[in-house]
Amino acid sequence: MNEPTAMRSEIGQQPAALRATLDALTPRGGEAAALARDCRQVLFIARGTSDNAAVYGSYLLQAHAGMLATLASPSIATEYHSRMDLSGVLAVALSQSGATEEIVETLAWARDCGARTLAITNGGGSPLTQVADVAFVTAAGAELAVPATKTFTTQLAALAVLAIALGADLDPGLLRGVPDEIERMLAGPDDTAAIVDAMTGAAGVVVSGRGHAYAAALELALKLKEACYLHAMGLSWADLLHGPIAVVDAATPAIIVAADSGPALPGSIELARRVVAAGARAYAIGGGPGLAAVSSLAVPGPQLPEWLAPLGLIVPGQLLTEALSRRLGIDPDSPRGLSKVTQTA
Amino acid sequence: MNEPTAMRSEIGQQPAALRATLDALTPRGGEAAALARDCRQVLFIARGTSDNAAVYGSYLLQAHAGMLATLASPSIATEYHSRMDLSGVLAVALSQSGATEEIVETLAWARDCGARTLAITNGGGSPLTQVADVAFVTAAGAELAVPATKTFTTQLAALAVLAIALGADLDPGLLRGVPDEIERMLAGPDDTAAIVDAMTGAAGVVVSGRGHAYAAALELALKLKEACYLHAMGLSWADLLHGPIAVVDAATPAIIVAADSGPALPGSIELARRVVAAGARAYAIGGGPGLAAVSSLAVPGPQLPEWLAPLGLIVPGQLLTEALSRRLGIDPDSPRGLSKVTQTA
Repeated sequence: MNEPTAMRSEIGQQPAALRATLDALTPRGGEAAALARDCRQVLFIARGTSDNAAVYGSYLLQAHAGMLATLASPSIATEYHSRMDLSGVLAVALSQSGATEEIVETLAWARDCGARTLAITNGGGSPLTQVADVAFVTAAGAELAVPATKTFTTQLAALAVLAIALGADLDPGLLRGVPDEIERMLAGPDDTAAIVDAMTGAAGVVVSGRGHAYAAALELALKLKEACYLHAMGLSWADLLHGPIAVVDAATPAIIVAADSGPALPGSIELARRVVAAGARAYAIGGGPGLAAVSSLAVPGPQLPEWLAPLGLIVPGQLLTEALSRRLGIDPDSPRGLSKVTQTA
Repeated sequence: MNEPTAMRSEIGQQPAALRATLDALTPRGGEAAALARDCRQVLFIARGTSDNAAVYGSYLLQAHAGMLATLASPSIATEYHSRMDLSGVLAVALSQSGATEEIVETLAWARDCGARTLAITNGGGSPLTQVADVAFVTAAGAELAVPATKTFTTQLAALAVLAIALGADLDPGLLRGVPDEIERMLAGPDDTAAIVDAMTGAAGVVVSGRGHAYAAALELALKLKEACYLHAMGLSWADLLHGPIAVVDAATPAIIVAADSGPALPGSIELARRVVAAGARAYAIGGGPGLAAVSSLAVPGPQLPEWLAPLGLIVPGQLLTEALSRRLGIDPDSPRGLSKVTQTA
């Protein structure tokens, strides 16, 4: 009768954290819209888990709001002190703590270069909120485990609010339904046990996704590196086919993360087929019956449209990471070498 | 008395390929400048090795030409068929063959969205050159080995020509000196043998770099995945500290790639110290005596300024990959699962 880990508890807190975040931020869409009135594009500033959230935001804005949205290289600001004209740019910085100096400094740099600035952070009153024109503070509550879970999914929710505010052709009612769907997933049996068993002896793993699901694949790869010390390589579907598919083999499976619908799904099914044909194992998270049918093992994903699927797709990945970490004798709450606020500046 | 592999021959052809490429492209800087006259930013379109070259281009333009330069997500064009306003954007597509449909289609999409378009390719007359307003055709000659070597370094040279044409405060005379410096490196003893020996039993490896050297680190990680089937994780210095440093251990060394000078060097030295303190081994490529002193093994980098260092830093990485691949019983010219022109569309 072990106590549940903080990580496991925080995974379970996600429905409540998402409801509180949507309650707090949905009414503030107008502020973001006003701020971005003269902006033609978005530039994300982030590291680590927040960087994976930014990838989600970039797909949402580009696929659904018709706005160019790409990722900044913070060292251009912090190391090279470059000056450029960022008028017409909405700079969006993401940081769980709001205290990582490199991110604060890069957002201040963007502001000084003429950008409008918005912060998405769980750190109310943090230095990042002081620099930003508008701060979207997520309501995840205190996160004690070092691997981020609820601060990640609430960042995704904040990005969905932002995309809708900036004109994305997406139904806010569907976004409101996400906490219920994650609650439903968490209430059911944990389907990840077979994958945890199979991965106990894995030397490494490739985690792949395409389109909106790519962000969830990158985040799962990061979790597996952080909490399981696994050689986890997060790769887009296309990048994987462009070379490193050579790396999958009997001891190196692929986890393929996919929404149950959308234009990226056929390619994800084809990728699973190629992985299995190469003599490796393919584990599916989501992707519906089509992906499950060609995969070695599969867990169902959320019943959500493609643009919201990443919020639910990461949940089985979090459960899998937490269970595998314990199985490997690691404390998932405090992996080696990490602290909660990372300073890289 | 084995025949040298095609990959080893092509590594040796880089000085000549670079000279021919600079001869062909340097006179054409004015065309690129005219094309980009009304452009405020650059958007790179690429996959795989070409994506790593694009990272180099983005740092050059942002650190030295004061222009925002970021990477596109091709699936926004090819899967989501998004429409957006790209007026004022110079879209730069990189593809060794110029025949990868996904890249051709994405450059055509950028053009249709109002961008100016430039291609950098080794494929003269390829479909990519048909779509682009201006085509910079590199003069690498035929490349037979699947892992790209001379087509990568000539892409970097083309990007340096482009950055100078777009106003970067960089000395073209130093660029002209790169082929001689790579020739000098190749004429000396191969210093990578000790690292090849040490890596023969490695389960995985982290390859890290910061600033301009980050592109060379990403490219070395890709080479090690492609030709050695290694679990090679290419990570920026900051992203590595933000979590996955947990992954280094006695069986998982870090290769740290750094120029001999520049603002990124102190952080690279600090990273090597942290890797060694964590009980793992750190292998340095470049970084001068400061990085070598704190690393487990070290090979010297090129005698080039930081902005040109990636062209030379990748050379020991190529030699290391080719030798390790053979040591592991792999044919580096034809790794499993790969063909020369990858279609991902």
